[in-house]
Amino acid sequence: MKYDYKIELKVRDYECDVQGIVNNAVYMNYLEHARHEFFLTQGIDFVELAKQNINLVVVRAELDYKFPLKSGDKFWIAVNFENLSPIRFAFNQDIYRTEDDKLILKAKIIGTSLNEKGKPISLIHVS
Amino acid sequence: MKYDYKIELKVRDYECDVQGIVNNAVYMNYLEHARHEFFLTQGIDFVELAKQNINLVVVRAELDYKFPLKSGDKFWIAVNFENLSPIRFAFNQDIYRTEDDKLILKAKIIGTSLNEKGKPISLIHVS
Amino acid sequence: MKYDYKIELKVRDYECDVQGIVNNAVYMNYLEHARHEFFLTQGIDFVELAKQNINLVVVRAELDYKFPLKSGDKFWIAVNFENLSPIRFAFNQDIYRTEDDKLILKAKIIGTSLNEKGKPISLIHVS
Amino acid sequence: MKYDYKIELKVRDYECDVQGIVNNAVYMNYLEHARHEFFLTQGIDFVELAKQNINLVVVRAELDYKFPLKSGDKFWIAVNFENLSPIRFAFNQDIYRTEDDKLILKAKIIGTSLNEKGKPISLIHVS
Repeated sequence: MKYDYKIELKVRDYECDVQGIVNNAVYMNYLEHARHEFFLTQGIDFVELAKQNINLVVVRAELDYKFPLKSGDKFWIAVNFENLSPIRFAFNQDIYRTEDDKLILKAKIIGTSLNEKGKPISLIHVS
Repeated sequence: MKYDYKIELKVRDYECDVQGIVNNAVYMNYLEHARHEFFLTQGIDFVELAKQNINLVVVRAELDYKFPLKSGDKFWIAVNFENLSPIRFAFNQDIYRTEDDKLILKAKIIGTSLNEKGKPISLIHVS
Repeated sequence: MKYDYKIELKVRDYECDVQGIVNNAVYMNYLEHARHEFFLTQGIDFVELAKQNINLVVVRAELDYKFPLKSGDKFWIAVNFENLSPIRFAFNQDIYRTEDDKLILKAKIIGTSLNEKGKPISLIHVS
Repeated sequence: MKYDYKIELKVRDYECDVQGIVNNAVYMNYLEHARHEFFLTQGIDFVELAKQNINLVVVRAELDYKFPLKSGDKFWIAVNFENLSPIRFAFNQDIYRTEDDKLILKAKIIGTSLNEKGKPISLIHVS
């Protein structure tokens, strides 16, 4: 399969909770990092935009947790980008454990760009 | 309106990102804390269960981000619990800004209980 | 004993790691939150200053971990402020478990204020 | 210079706060991750030990913040290990920005191993 972007990371011990598995909120961190790294490959810099008071924000997130990551696991995130409308974009992001390509999580993240008045604007054009 | 549980919290500065608003992953932390506090009122202790190798886990999360919280905001989380099946439960959780009861986020979190072999078991009976 | 400021918080499950105790980095979050809440009582707003490109930053931290907090523990943070020089200030911050006032952590945090060029400036005058 | 261990990481946007720089607590995460990776090279597994109720814990931390990391910065952590006594060990850990080897943070972390009764035990023998 082909992906618009792919990144490999490794679980850090402080990301695991008392159950010994990665806490559910941490996957949102992983997914965000993958999106921002993808954006950078497109010349879009989340932090630079924020300085100009243009905020890339998540408006909806759907996450299906299939199997937990645990301490020391390497994993990779497949990122696919889609323009939904002039002001909305979607990411399909799947996380796989590197060792055996086991599916860990499927996510759909819908985002938009807000100007300094909080109005959605057309910003992201990824070909 | 009536809720099964309600908790009020306050945004801490370290929870905000470069945009000056609460990072999207942090809401998952807020929601989890509210669920665990609710569970405690029902005699269900997430950490004690984990010590017995029974893990309460999220299997699906849907979050609609309506309006961002920012530094210093007080907010409250409304929690409604529902048994979906003997082995699945759902939480409807809404976050409101305390100041004006503005809706911040709507979430639906589906969870299950796993035994030490990772098999779903029937555990949560909230009346 | 008298303190310049005091705040009570409660451990959240996601702040605990695989050892079942609060992760060492999380105490830095607790301490920062207590300092920022104290600053607010003095009319000093960390986030407002950041918007003006004035950054309150930590230059040195010393932490003595005496006893771990665990899930569900309530604790309070005693905050004492001291001006070290026109451009440096110090916080002595002790964390106690509420249940029995057991000492959990002793910290000394030294900070300064930086202007937009990163130069230390005289800002904090707490009487 | 020679180090017992060295690891390179990259700042993730969610690790930065409203000031646009890495939050002071996040450095504790970085340092812990570097120590645990070093331990693994010595056959010492933090998580496996925790499952046996042996906890590696920090008893004292000293951090000198020299210069902030910001979004996108790559950095490396130099780790030096020292046995202080049969039951205490120390880590000297320096963080440098990769781009120009600028010193970002100097840390000294003192740790011990606790058995299930919370008593310090002799565990770590790194040659």
